[in-house]
Amino acid sequence: MPLVRIDLVRGRTAGARRALGDAVHRALVETIGVPPLDRFQVIREHERNELVYDPAYLGIERGDGIVIIQVTLSSGRTLEQKRALYRRIAGNLAELGVRAEDVWINLVEVARENWSFGLGEASYAPAEKAAA
Amino acid sequence: MPLVRIDLVRGRTAGARRALGDAVHRALVETIGVPPLDRFQVIREHERNELVYDPAYLGIERGDGIVIIQVTLSSGRTLEQKRALYRRIAGNLAELGVRAEDVWINLVEVARENWSFGLGEASYAPAEKAAA
Amino acid sequence: MPLVRIDLVRGRTAGARRALGDAVHRALVETIGVPPLDRFQVIREHERNELVYDPAYLGIERGDGIVIIQVTLSSGRTLEQKRALYRRIAGNLAELGVRAEDVWINLVEVARENWSFGLGEASYAPAEKAAA
Repeated sequence: MPLVRIDLVRGRTAGARRALGDAVHRALVETIGVPPLDRFQVIREHERNELVYDPAYLGIERGDGIVIIQVTLSSGRTLEQKRALYRRIAGNLAELGVRAEDVWINLVEVARENWSFGLGEASYAPAEKAAA
Repeated sequence: MPLVRIDLVRGRTAGARRALGDAVHRALVETIGVPPLDRFQVIREHERNELVYDPAYLGIERGDGIVIIQVTLSSGRTLEQKRALYRRIAGNLAELGVRAEDVWINLVEVARENWSFGLGEASYAPAEKAAA
Repeated sequence: MPLVRIDLVRGRTAGARRALGDAVHRALVETIGVPPLDRFQVIREHERNELVYDPAYLGIERGDGIVIIQVTLSSGRTLEQKRALYRRIAGNLAELGVRAEDVWINLVEVARENWSFGLGEASYAPAEKAAA
């Protein structure tokens, strides 16, 4: 259910980008109950001047290793679950050498009926009651 | 009003991509009352390793023909309207040879006052009451 | 806190794109209280056929100079603040030669707890009450 958009400054190998995607997905599975197979990600590299970030906002020193992660997901997670997700994403990315300062996350929450994973069906919505 | 982002694996012609955009827009017009001229789309191709999708989630067999469609639109559509939209998008894309398994859709709903279609105006918000 | 995605038709210089980003950010700071250092933007150029826009919707004559601006931000702004934001963005872009007809804006609102600006923390959420 999540759609994950990851935006990066150009410079990583395809394998490294894939590993970033793996790490983010694993965090979603481990902390907020995303099904292991429910993985859909768009991972983009950008020229340095296309990805603008402040290097000091909130006193956090960011660099060109920044990983901008925007996750669209169904609403309903608690604040504690979101906290756990942020921590876990940062922890998993740290294992890949990403500095915790460079892990930038935003969640966009939508209704469960707002997903169709194929076949033209509302994948998560209750079955139709009216005659079909 | 909708902003439609379509993400694809590289390999289609420009004409084929345009036809995908046409088909998605037609579905929005036909099922949820989007005005015919209200069309704004960003259609992106990606290298295979930039677009990560699970080939089996929910038992649906996806392939590299996958069409990831994220639609930001004003809130207020009923579940039945969303169902009709999903079905119609899949139906319209089928006419272009896209397998129903490869039609992936997510809706992000926002307030009607969250759009400016030009001129610095809140295009859909009630007129200002205060002296302007 | 805002994540700003700016989509353009190819053709501007890197400096001109940067200036667009500056102008949008300044409007956010000046009208809705975004902190000056809170700047995170993804600015993308697209081939003409990748960015589809209607040239006349709502009677506004758009051209290839169109600037599609999607801002994800915390919810809570009033309609008047949003109006002021739209006006200011259009005004700031006009100083760069962008026609007011070509300024296209969409806001996506999320909860304040939906942001992590680094360190794996929920940057804007109240401190944890439980023992940490």
